[in-house]
Amino acid sequence: MRELRKDPIIFRWVIISTERAKRPAEKHAGREEEADDPAGCPFEEGSEASTPPEIYALRKPATSPDTPGWRIRVTPNKYPALLMEGDPAAQQQGLFTRIPGVGAHETVIETPDHFRHLEAQPLPHLTRILEVFQQRICALRADPRIAYVLVFRNQGRSAGASLHHPHSQIVGLPVIPTRIEEELAGSLAHWKRTGECVFCDLTKQVLEKDELVVHRDDGVLAFCPYASIFPYETWILPEAHQADFADAGNELLAGIARALKVVLMKHREALGKLSYNMVLHTLPSTDAVVDDFPASHQHYHWHLEIYPRLTQPAGCEWGAGIHINPKTPEEAAMHLRSIKAEVD
Amino acid sequence: MRELRKDPIIFRWVIISTERAKRPAEKHAGREEEADDPAGCPFEEGSEASTPPEIYALRKPATSPDTPGWRIRVTPNKYPALLMEGDPAAQQQGLFTRIPGVGAHETVIETPDHFRHLEAQPLPHLTRILEVFQQRICALRADPRIAYVLVFRNQGRSAGASLHHPHSQIVGLPVIPTRIEEELAGSLAHWKRTGECVFCDLTKQVLEKDELVVHRDDGVLAFCPYASIFPYETWILPEAHQADFADAGNELLAGIARALKVVLMKHREALGKLSYNMVLHTLPSTDAVVDDFPASHQHYHWHLEIYPRLTQPAGCEWGAGIHINPKTPEEAAMHLRSIKAEVD
Repeated sequence: MRELRKDPIIFRWVIISTERAKRPAEKHAGREEEADDPAGCPFEEGSEASTPPEIYALRKPATSPDTPGWRIRVTPNKYPALLMEGDPAAQQQGLFTRIPGVGAHETVIETPDHFRHLEAQPLPHLTRILEVFQQRICALRADPRIAYVLVFRNQGRSAGASLHHPHSQIVGLPVIPTRIEEELAGSLAHWKRTGECVFCDLTKQVLEKDELVVHRDDGVLAFCPYASIFPYETWILPEAHQADFADAGNELLAGIARALKVVLMKHREALGKLSYNMVLHTLPSTDAVVDDFPASHQHYHWHLEIYPRLTQPAGCEWGAGIHINPKTPEEAAMHLRSIKAEVD
Repeated sequence: MRELRKDPIIFRWVIISTERAKRPAEKHAGREEEADDPAGCPFEEGSEASTPPEIYALRKPATSPDTPGWRIRVTPNKYPALLMEGDPAAQQQGLFTRIPGVGAHETVIETPDHFRHLEAQPLPHLTRILEVFQQRICALRADPRIAYVLVFRNQGRSAGASLHHPHSQIVGLPVIPTRIEEELAGSLAHWKRTGECVFCDLTKQVLEKDELVVHRDDGVLAFCPYASIFPYETWILPEAHQADFADAGNELLAGIARALKVVLMKHREALGKLSYNMVLHTLPSTDAVVDDFPASHQHYHWHLEIYPRLTQPAGCEWGAGIHINPKTPEEAAMHLRSIKAEVD
């Protein structure tokens, strides 16, 4: 069973998907570290039959789909939260609103190397992974049923990863997620008030004083946000205004890849074992944008958000939406700036 | 350092509190189960000196504060996220808004018995714990700097508890938390549209079909919400309209205590080791309510929310506000209904 349901009081969407419970790791979620033994890992080269047939792959010439020879491989998720079947029309019954669970759920296997996580990838390969994200976003947006394509990455059991092998996830949703809607609404309000992109204004303010800056190079800024909800939370964005990640050219993607590698190396050095969530925030599908959304997209600005998982959110966070962050973003940024990260 | 900061894009408040990092458990949060050895536990009878001096206690006659003889004891939190000192006036610097970390953070030690969690308490004692919550809410609201009093409970390491000894937490906040603001706004909109309380309407719809009901007795309903974000999520509310938990009489509190005990016993039986967050949602302080809030409070309805922690929220949840729940609320409710819970 897969469907989206809307909270009748606060209008928050949730995916109810009983398929997800079949994941082997779900049984002891949060209780132990993920296995880092490649034996039995479904994402190894040579184990292509353990995943659903591939959607896309970067491969050596003259190798066939679902055989060895790939460098990056995209497959449907084996336990998909959503499936691309049917019509996502809302159904109402009194206070209860549901949408059939129509959408996509894909896995990006980032490398055949079980142990080579993003921070250890050569820059050209890391850039290629970002290009694959871009490509899948464009492909999924072509389906009018998809309102938003969400790219995210969980690393480490305490960040919710069920498998150690380096991978990201892509979810094509029939609704715009809450957090994105809030960012769109907030940035639209700022743009109407000031005529400026709030992310561009934020970048200027962060650069006026250096205290929140983690890394700056190639027109890309990495910083700890002023109101970080997680200790060492870090955002990465292009300094020049750009609303949609799909519009990023190769040169910019290479700069983003470099900043991402630097940030993850610094996190690892500062925090030890790297357990984190990463998420890409970008524009929704054109068909899904709200009425008073300016066609020029001057108000929104895509970015990456990285949340190291050192704290365990509890009653205050889940029950009230109030996060308690035990590290000031200024101290976190100073610590991260002090760490040298050599990138080829 | 303690302050509240407002996200410049989505206007979400976060508490930045470096005191919290000093908690012994924070060092390995999420990595191991909490110690259940009473030796060294600061909440034992006889260890009163290990906590700050008590604010309130239910005690045997002729025993003195901060000595043995108590049955329920409220103390300031040893690692407070907020402190009741100074003026919580907002300070603005460009896009950055902060409020000094003025507020209260208290611990309710629910029993001298290290092992007796809520579900194992006799009903009269459980009722008394709820009365202590009520009393602390009223006491904290008397300070005009407090906008909202949040009562919550974390049980089990994977729910963020740092100590095993049965306790709840009370946080007096200088702002209304996001989730409460959303509920106030959603319920106010429903009331303006229909003239009814959305929680009362919800109760009616849940009772029309039994499939979401977990337990019903004494004018109290326990049910799995239609758009539950956690598997086995359960809410408890009085069936008769009541906006504010502070207005609940002794008879109603006894009914709530009974429902709470039944629900927690059922959760324990259904899910094994009980790890959960519980939160009380009630009205803000009178001074803090929004402009168009009806003085009669017909639109809001206090309730308890309980989140068993079986899944590990990850990139999708934190990065986009989209929860994936692998259990339908109907199946969870059916499972919980099928479990017999004998309460004295």
